[in-house]
Amino acid sequence: MTTTEILGFCAAFFTTASFLPQAILTIKTRDTTSLSLSMYTMFTVGVFFWLIYGIQKVDYAIIFANSITLLLSSTILGFKVYNLIYKKGK
Amino acid sequence: MTTTEILGFCAAFFTTASFLPQAILTIKTRDTTSLSLSMYTMFTVGVFFWLIYGIQKVDYAIIFANSITLLLSSTILGFKVYNLIYKKGK
Repeated sequence: MTTTEILGFCAAFFTTASFLPQAILTIKTRDTTSLSLSMYTMFTVGVFFWLIYGIQKVDYAIIFANSITLLLSSTILGFKVYNLIYKKGK
Repeated sequence: MTTTEILGFCAAFFTTASFLPQAILTIKTRDTTSLSLSMYTMFTVGVFFWLIYGIQKVDYAIIFANSITLLLSSTILGFKVYNLIYKKGK
């Protein structure tokens, strides 16, 4: 592994880890009242684009970071949409 | 510009734009009560590492996305630390 690759995985670790507490809280409580639908939609689309970008460039740090984040953010977005439809906007 | 580069800039646009409403709200109100210090510290460190990674790989989409996000997240982190020191944890 080159130092650039190690740096990439450190970057991936920090940005993914910073997103974890929100993801864990939402997955546990399933409460999405205070989360913004437009923000999570944009974020999830963006992370999906980063993942495709990483695959096209064969960049493992980008693939690693964005596949985990996509899994988490799309789960949160799924809860948000579910709650909007079935729980009157909660 | 290749299609991969265009994809990278789309990804950069979406993830940066999704962060903007929080940044604008915090910069306007300077209220950081409900923001997590540990989350913003990790996120800012991570974004800084991504920026260095982008510079080392000469990847303009990564440089573009992370220089804007670093500017915004370090400003929010600055307000949080300032408020913790001078406004009793607010």
